[in-house]
Amino acid sequence: MASAVTPPRGMRDFLPGEKAKREHALGVIRRSYSAHGFDEIETPVMEDIQRLHSGLGGDNEKLSFSVLRRGIERSDLDAAAESNDAQALADLGLRFDLTVPLARFYATHRAELPAVFRSVQIAPVWRAERPQKGRYRQFMQCDIDIIGDASALAEVELISATLSTLDALGLQGSTVRINDRRLLIGMLELFGFPADQHDFVLIVIDKIDKIGTAGVIEELRSKTPQLAEATDALESFFLRPQDGAARPFGHDAIARALPEGVDSDVIAELASIGDAVDAGRIRFDPFLVRGMGYYTGTIFEIAHPDFAFSLGGGGRYDGMIGRFLGTDVPAVGFSIGFERIVDLVDLPDEQAADSVVVLHDAAAPAVLMQSLKTELIASGARVRLERKAKNAKLQLERLADAGFTRVATVLPDVESVADLKFRALGR
Amino acid sequence: MASAVTPPRGMRDFLPGEKAKREHALGVIRRSYSAHGFDEIETPVMEDIQRLHSGLGGDNEKLSFSVLRRGIERSDLDAAAESNDAQALADLGLRFDLTVPLARFYATHRAELPAVFRSVQIAPVWRAERPQKGRYRQFMQCDIDIIGDASALAEVELISATLSTLDALGLQGSTVRINDRRLLIGMLELFGFPADQHDFVLIVIDKIDKIGTAGVIEELRSKTPQLAEATDALESFFLRPQDGAARPFGHDAIARALPEGVDSDVIAELASIGDAVDAGRIRFDPFLVRGMGYYTGTIFEIAHPDFAFSLGGGGRYDGMIGRFLGTDVPAVGFSIGFERIVDLVDLPDEQAADSVVVLHDAAAPAVLMQSLKTELIASGARVRLERKAKNAKLQLERLADAGFTRVATVLPDVESVADLKFRALGR
Repeated sequence: MASAVTPPRGMRDFLPGEKAKREHALGVIRRSYSAHGFDEIETPVMEDIQRLHSGLGGDNEKLSFSVLRRGIERSDLDAAAESNDAQALADLGLRFDLTVPLARFYATHRAELPAVFRSVQIAPVWRAERPQKGRYRQFMQCDIDIIGDASALAEVELISATLSTLDALGLQGSTVRINDRRLLIGMLELFGFPADQHDFVLIVIDKIDKIGTAGVIEELRSKTPQLAEATDALESFFLRPQDGAARPFGHDAIARALPEGVDSDVIAELASIGDAVDAGRIRFDPFLVRGMGYYTGTIFEIAHPDFAFSLGGGGRYDGMIGRFLGTDVPAVGFSIGFERIVDLVDLPDEQAADSVVVLHDAAAPAVLMQSLKTELIASGARVRLERKAKNAKLQLERLADAGFTRVATVLPDVESVADLKFRALGR
Repeated sequence: MASAVTPPRGMRDFLPGEKAKREHALGVIRRSYSAHGFDEIETPVMEDIQRLHSGLGGDNEKLSFSVLRRGIERSDLDAAAESNDAQALADLGLRFDLTVPLARFYATHRAELPAVFRSVQIAPVWRAERPQKGRYRQFMQCDIDIIGDASALAEVELISATLSTLDALGLQGSTVRINDRRLLIGMLELFGFPADQHDFVLIVIDKIDKIGTAGVIEELRSKTPQLAEATDALESFFLRPQDGAARPFGHDAIARALPEGVDSDVIAELASIGDAVDAGRIRFDPFLVRGMGYYTGTIFEIAHPDFAFSLGGGGRYDGMIGRFLGTDVPAVGFSIGFERIVDLVDLPDEQAADSVVVLHDAAAPAVLMQSLKTELIASGARVRLERKAKNAKLQLERLADAGFTRVATVLPDVESVADLKFRALGR
C-alpha cells in the first residue's frame, strides 16, 4: 500500500504552510465582507439529489458527485440495472456550487431572515472536472449574495464589497466588467436572431475573448447558415467605425457601445451603478455573456491588469429563488475565485510575531519541557518543542522556513525560561 | 415544492447568529493550538473507498457515506445486482473521522514533514447516524495529533494544549480521565479472562458509567457463564475495601487503584504524565475503555463537573500509521467534541464593537447610500444599509439582536456621515 498513498484524483492535501496562507486569506475575506454588512451562513455539503438536479446548475449538474442511498437492497440494484440508471441508487449529492444551496436555504428559513438578506458563504464545492492544471474536484467558493432587493443598490453594494475585499487581499487595481442579459437579448433581437437561437448564439459570443469577433462570425456562419442575415448585422456592428474616445462609465458610454434601439431604461439602470461605484473601476462590456442560464439582469466579472483570467463574477438571478419558494424573490450574487486568488496574494505573516523553538534531547524531563512551554505561551509566544536533530543546520533552516523567529536549547542547568539563551532564526 | 424545503435528514443549516458563534469558537481553538506549536492541515472530504474501509475506523466505517463512481455502465449495474453489492459502484467515500485521513496524509507527505509532526485538523465528518437529538450526520471535529514521538512528552503536550484550549473557550474546570490499554489488558489477564474474550469483556466494562459495577458483573455472568471464575475475580476487585484517601495523581494513586501484579513500567510511564500536567486536572480511571480498537497505549477523556457527558477524548495508536506507510510510527491524538462544546460556551461578541445601521427609504439615491457606507467602513465600523420597515420597533429590535450597536436614518438633507444623527441600539 505504501507505493501509491495519495489523495483521490483531482483533490488536494494542504500542508501547514499552504493551509496557513489559505486560512489567512479567508480571514481577510470574512472580515471585509462582515464590515460591508454581510452575514455568514453555512449549509450542509450535501443536498437532496432532486434539488441539485433541478436544472438550475446548468452544465455543472452533470459534473456533480452522487451519494449512494443507505440500505440499498437487491431489488433496488435489479431495478437500477433494468433501467440502466445508477442515479436511482443515490438520494443525496455533493453541492457543485453555493447558489443552489443558498436558494434552498432561503426557502427554508425565509421567515427568520431580514427582508433584505445579505449572505456570505465560504465553503468547498465538488465537481468531477477532467483532471487538468488548475482544475480541482474540490475547491473553495466565496460568494456574497443579496436576496430581496430589486434595486441597483444591491449591485452597488456587491461590487463595492468585492472590490474592497480584493484590495484588502493586496489585489489593488482590480476592475469590474459589467453587462446586462436584457441588453444582450435586446441586441440579438435587433440583429434579427430568433428567440429559440439566442442561447446558442450567446454560447458562441461568449468565446469572443478566445477566438475574437472574426472567429465568432465564422462559427455562426458555419454552424447556423440559416441565420446569415442576423450574422451579417452582428458583423457590421463588430466592424462599425468607433470614435475611440475614452468615456467614463455612464449612460453615454453604454449607449454608444450598443446598437441604436436597445432599451434605454436598462441602460439607465446600469449607468446608475457606475455613479455609486468608483467609475474608474467599472467598465461596460456589451459582449460579456457569463455561462449560467439563470441570470436575468446584470452580469459582471472581475478583471485585473496583471492576469489574463477572471478573478470572479456574478449577476442577478431573479427567477431562481422562486423555483424553491414558489414565489419570486429578487437576488443578485458575486463570487470571487478563491483558488486562483490565493495563489496570487502574498500575505504578510499573521502568526504571532514571537514564534519560539525550544530544542532538547531525550534526557530532558517532560515536566521541565512542559513548564518551559507553558511559561512561554503565557508570555504570548507560539511554542514548538523539538528534539535536537543530528543535522542541526537543516533543522534550523526548516524551522525558520516554518516561521519560527527564535530558538534556544535546553542545557542541563536550565530550570526556567530565564535560563534559556535565545538566538534569532533568520528566514 | 414550497412545503418541505429542508436540509437533508440529520444535517443542519447555520443561520448568521449560530454561524458567527461557531466561527468565533473555531478561531479561539485555532489560536490556542497554534500557540501550543501545532500546525493546521487539511485533507479532501473524500478518500478512496478501500482506504476508508480498511478496518481502522471500527463501527464508524459502517456508518460511512459512499460516493457513486462516475461513468457507471449497464454492465457495472448488472454485476452489482448479481453480487448484491451496491458498494461495488462506489469509488470514494466521505470521511467518518479525521484519524484515517491523517494516517493517509502522513503516509503521503512524510518526507515533507518534521520528524515529530504536530497536526491540527478542524473539519467536518459524516456518519449516517440514526436521527436522534444531538446526533448529526454532518458534524465538526477538532483533532490534534502528535506523530513520531513515542515518549510521554507527546501525551503531556496534547493534554496541556487541550485543557488550555478549553480554558480559553470558557470551560475552566475541565479535567482529564486517563488510563492505558496495556493496564486494562494486564488487569484482564490477572483476573483470568482469556485473550480471545478481552474485546468482549472491554465492551461490557465500557458500560460501567451507565450500568454500574453490579451491572457489568451481571451481564458477564449471563452472557459468558464459562468465564465465571474470572468474573468472580473482577467482582472481588470491584468490591475490595478501599482506604478512601484522596491521593494526587501519581505512581502511588495509580498502583493502589489496580490489582497487584500489573506492569509497573506502564504505571511509571502514566505517572510521569501527571508530573508534567497540572496534577489537579488529571485523574486515573482504571476502567476507562474508549471504544476504538486501534488504541495501543494511553487513552483519555475530558470530564467537566457541570456536564454528564465527555467533552472529548483520545489516545495512542502506534499501529495505525503503519497500515498506510508500511512501517510503524508512534502516534497519539486528542479530539474535542466541538458540537457539544459550542452549545456550552458563551463567548463575548468579537464583532466590531461599532456595528452601524443606516436606515433609508426607496428615494435615497444609491450613490449617497454607498458613499455613506464607504465612509463608515473606513472609520472601522461594520455597516448595514437597510430600507426602513413599516414596523420600526420590530426592525430595531431585530437589528439589536443581530449585534448592531447604533442606528441613524437618512433624512433628505443628509450629504455625508457628519449629517447623520446616530442613536444607540440596546440589546
